[in-house]
Amino acid sequence: MVSEPSREKWTNEYPRWFDWIIEEAEIYDYGRYPVKGMGVWMPYGFQIRRRIIELIRDLLDARGHEEVLFPMLIPEILLRRETEHVKGFEDEVYWVTHGGLKPLDVKLALRPTSETSITYMETFWIKSYKQLPKKYYQIVSIFRYETKATRPMIRLREVTTFKEAHTVHDSFEDAERQVREALEIYLEFFDRLAIPYIVSRRPEWDKFAGALYTIAIDTIMPDGRTLQIGTAHNLGQNFTKAFDFKIQLQDESLDYPWQTSYGISDRVVATVVSIHGDDRGTVLPPNIAPIQVVIIPIPAKDEESKRQIDTLLSQVVKALKGAGIRVKVDDREEMRPGAKFFYWETRGVPVRIEIGAKEAKESKLTLVRRDTLEKKTIDAENVVVEVRKLFDEIYNNLYKRAWNYLRQRIKRTDSIQEAKDWIKDKKGVVELPWCGHEECALKLEEELEGKALGTPWPLESAPETAKCPLCGRKAITWMRYAKSY
Amino acid sequence: MVSEPSREKWTNEYPRWFDWIIEEAEIYDYGRYPVKGMGVWMPYGFQIRRRIIELIRDLLDARGHEEVLFPMLIPEILLRRETEHVKGFEDEVYWVTHGGLKPLDVKLALRPTSETSITYMETFWIKSYKQLPKKYYQIVSIFRYETKATRPMIRLREVTTFKEAHTVHDSFEDAERQVREALEIYLEFFDRLAIPYIVSRRPEWDKFAGALYTIAIDTIMPDGRTLQIGTAHNLGQNFTKAFDFKIQLQDESLDYPWQTSYGISDRVVATVVSIHGDDRGTVLPPNIAPIQVVIIPIPAKDEESKRQIDTLLSQVVKALKGAGIRVKVDDREEMRPGAKFFYWETRGVPVRIEIGAKEAKESKLTLVRRDTLEKKTIDAENVVVEVRKLFDEIYNNLYKRAWNYLRQRIKRTDSIQEAKDWIKDKKGVVELPWCGHEECALKLEEELEGKALGTPWPLESAPETAKCPLCGRKAITWMRYAKSY
Repeated sequence: MVSEPSREKWTNEYPRWFDWIIEEAEIYDYGRYPVKGMGVWMPYGFQIRRRIIELIRDLLDARGHEEVLFPMLIPEILLRRETEHVKGFEDEVYWVTHGGLKPLDVKLALRPTSETSITYMETFWIKSYKQLPKKYYQIVSIFRYETKATRPMIRLREVTTFKEAHTVHDSFEDAERQVREALEIYLEFFDRLAIPYIVSRRPEWDKFAGALYTIAIDTIMPDGRTLQIGTAHNLGQNFTKAFDFKIQLQDESLDYPWQTSYGISDRVVATVVSIHGDDRGTVLPPNIAPIQVVIIPIPAKDEESKRQIDTLLSQVVKALKGAGIRVKVDDREEMRPGAKFFYWETRGVPVRIEIGAKEAKESKLTLVRRDTLEKKTIDAENVVVEVRKLFDEIYNNLYKRAWNYLRQRIKRTDSIQEAKDWIKDKKGVVELPWCGHEECALKLEEELEGKALGTPWPLESAPETAKCPLCGRKAITWMRYAKSY
Repeated sequence: MVSEPSREKWTNEYPRWFDWIIEEAEIYDYGRYPVKGMGVWMPYGFQIRRRIIELIRDLLDARGHEEVLFPMLIPEILLRRETEHVKGFEDEVYWVTHGGLKPLDVKLALRPTSETSITYMETFWIKSYKQLPKKYYQIVSIFRYETKATRPMIRLREVTTFKEAHTVHDSFEDAERQVREALEIYLEFFDRLAIPYIVSRRPEWDKFAGALYTIAIDTIMPDGRTLQIGTAHNLGQNFTKAFDFKIQLQDESLDYPWQTSYGISDRVVATVVSIHGDDRGTVLPPNIAPIQVVIIPIPAKDEESKRQIDTLLSQVVKALKGAGIRVKVDDREEMRPGAKFFYWETRGVPVRIEIGAKEAKESKLTLVRRDTLEKKTIDAENVVVEVRKLFDEIYNNLYKRAWNYLRQRIKRTDSIQEAKDWIKDKKGVVELPWCGHEECALKLEEELEGKALGTPWPLESAPETAKCPLCGRKAITWMRYAKSY
C-alpha cells in the first residue's frame, strides 16, 4: 500500500493552498475580474457546482419544495418593510439608482436575500391554511457589499450560488417542524458530500436579521477555522406581520401565518474542494466529480501494442459509458503520462485507469484511486464492477477521514486557559460550560479571541455540577467558540 | 374524431390570451411585482423553463461548448471599451452607484450582455491558436432599461433566462463557420420544440451593437407579429481590438482573434406556450412538459369498483414511472372530474388518462390527447407503448400545424399595395424585391408600417427581372417586412 499523499501543505498553508487549487484546477478565477469580491466560475468548477446543485435540488424536490425565480431587484420600500431585517442589511446593500442616463424614481436594491420580495408575492398567492405548508426555493445570485476582507467563494460580494428556501405554515409548531426538516435535508446533503458538520443554535446577538432564532451548520476548515455552510431560520410572524399577510385558518379566523427560511451557498463548493484535499490538489467525491474516471493510454513503441491498447481502450470506454459513468480519455500527444497523472490528480478525479502495452496484451487494467493513490490491477472485463466498488471505497474513506479530522478538532473543557490555547494553536472549536448570560459569552469571545458559534443543537444540558468558567453561575449548556471565516 | 379545439380567441385576441394563460396556468406572475418589466417564474412555469434550458444545454455541450458563470456587474470602464457597443446600450443600462450608504468609486452596470466582461477575461485565458476554437456559454439574468412598452417574457427589464454563447477563433473563416454552427444548433433546438422560424440577415442599421453582422431567427406569433427568438453575431475583431486581446497564430505571429456571440432568451418559453395554444389554454410538446400524463380517477359509487380503480391506477402509475414518463395523479377530492379536465387542459398536459368503474372492470383506459382532444380506449397493459405513440403523434401534429400556420403567413409580392394590406390585416411577413439601398428599405418601413426584418439567410437572389418597387433599380434579393414585437 502506498502511503497517503501528504496533507501537510494543505493544513499548514491552507489559505494559500485554496488560492492555488482554485486557479490550478481551473475552478474559479478570482482576483483578475476588475470588481472586488467577484469572480468567474470556470468550466471545470462550473460542472462541480452544477452537480452539487442537482444534489440539493433532488433532496428539496423530494420533500415537496417548489422551485421559483424572483426578480433580482427589490424596491427600497419592500426591503424596508421589516425593521430588524433592514437594520441587519442596510450597510451591505448595493443600490441601483439610474436607468440609462436618468435617475430612477425608486431606488432598487440588488437582493441581499429574498424574504421581503417573496413574502410580498405570497400575500397574493396564499389565502388559506388549505394551501399550507408551502415550500418555495430558488437558486440565484445575491449581493452584499461586504466590508470585511473578501475571500474567493467564501466571502464574496456576489454570491453566485445562493439556494434560499422560504416556507409558510399555519402554526408555530409547523414552522418548528419545518426547521427540523430543513436541517435533515441539509445534513443528508452534507453527508452525501462527505462533509462533516457541527450544528449550533446561534446566539441571540448573531441570529439572522428578522428571525426568532437561527440554527447554523458549521464545518472546520483545514486551518482550524470554522465556516458557516448552512443556516435555517424560524422567522415567526415577523415578516407576515410587516407585510400584513393574513390567511384563513381552519377555524375560519384570519391570522398571520408563520415562516421559515434556510440557505446554502457557494461555500459548499469551497468546502468540498478544501476538506478532502491534500498536497497534490483536491479529491472529489465520485458522485459530484465532473469526470469520475480518467483513462490514460501509455504510448507504445510497436504497432501491435498500439493496436491492442486502442482496442482495449475503446472496450473499456464503451463499458463505462454504458454504465453511466462519466469517463474521459486523455490522449493528448504533447503531454507525457507523468504530467497527465499530475494534471488529473490536481483536479481530484477519483479514479485513474492506465493502459500500457503490458496491460493491453493481458487484457488487464491498472486502477489508481485518488484519495490514497493505491494501485490495483484488475481484469479488464470487470472494469464496471471494480470502478463502482472503488467509488464506494473512496466515498467511505473521505467520509471517515473528514469526520475523524473534525472530531479531533473539537475540545470540551472548563478551563479558560485550555480553551485559549486550543484556539491560539488553530486546533478548532472549544466548548465551555455557559450560564446563558450574554455578557459572559461576549467577554469570553474577547478573552479567547474566538467567535461564539452558539449552543449545541439539539440542546444539550451541562452536567448538574458544571459552572460558567467566568462568573461561576450554574451552567445550563455549552457555548462553542472558534476562529471563524 | 372530435373537432379541433377552437383557436379563434387564441388568434384574434392573442395578447390578452397570453396575459390570461401565463396567469391561469401559473407560469409567470407579471404585473403584481412592484418593479415594471420584472416578473416571477412560478413553479409550473419554472419547470417548463427548466426543461427547455436542459434541451439547449445538451445541444451546446454536444458541440463542445463549455458552461461558465460571470459576475453580474460590469465596471463602467469595461463596458465603454468598445465604442459602437456602448453606444447601442448606454440608454438601457441600469447603474449601481452605491454600496450600503456610500457612493462607489466606480459605477457598476447590471450586465446588458457579456461581450465586454468575457473578452476581458479571455485575454488572460487564451494565448494561442492551439486553444481555439473556444466556445463558452452562460445562462443568466440580463437587464435592460427598456423604454418601449414592456411585455411579460417578451420585452422585460430583467430577462431572467438569457443563454449567451461567446466564441473565439483564429480566422475570419472559422468565425463564419461558427455562426453557421450556432444557427444549426438553434434550428435543431426550435425543431425539437416544434417552433417554426424564418432566418434573416438583419439590415446593417439593425445589427447588434459591435457586430460585423447579425443573423436573426424570427417566428410569427398568433396575432401575425414577428418575434425575434434567437440571434447570432459575427463580431469580427471589434472586441478583441478594443481589449487589445492578441494570440499567437500558427505562423508564430501575434494577431487579434475573431469572435462570435449568439443568444436566446425567455422568449423561447413565451413562444412554446403561445404557438401551440388554443382557446382552452396551452399545449406543451411532450419532451418539455413538466407533467406528461395526468391520470384522473373517476369517483365510483360502490366499494368493489373503488378497489378495482385503485388497483388499476397503481399498476398504470408504476408502469409509466418505470418507463421514465412524468406522470401525476389528480385525486383531489374537492374537485369534480370535469373541472380537473379543464384545469389540466389549460396547463397543456399532453395526455390525460381517465379511469372509471367501467374501465377498471375491463382493465381498459381512456386516453385523451390535448392537441386534438381525441379520445381513445386502450388495454391497460399496453399503456406505455400507447402513451409513447401518442407523444410522437402529438409532437408531429404540433410541428405540422405550426409550420403550416407560419407558411401561410409569409407573402412574396412586388406590389406595395398588397404588402401594405398584408401587414395591415395582421397576416404576417411580406417579402418585397430589394435593390440593396438603405433609403428604400427605410422608406418602405414607413409606407408599410412594418419593420424591415432583413434579407433571407442563406442569401437568396431575386430573379433577373425583379425590380425595387420603390426606386425601380434592379433588385438583388428580398427584404422582409412585418409588424414585430
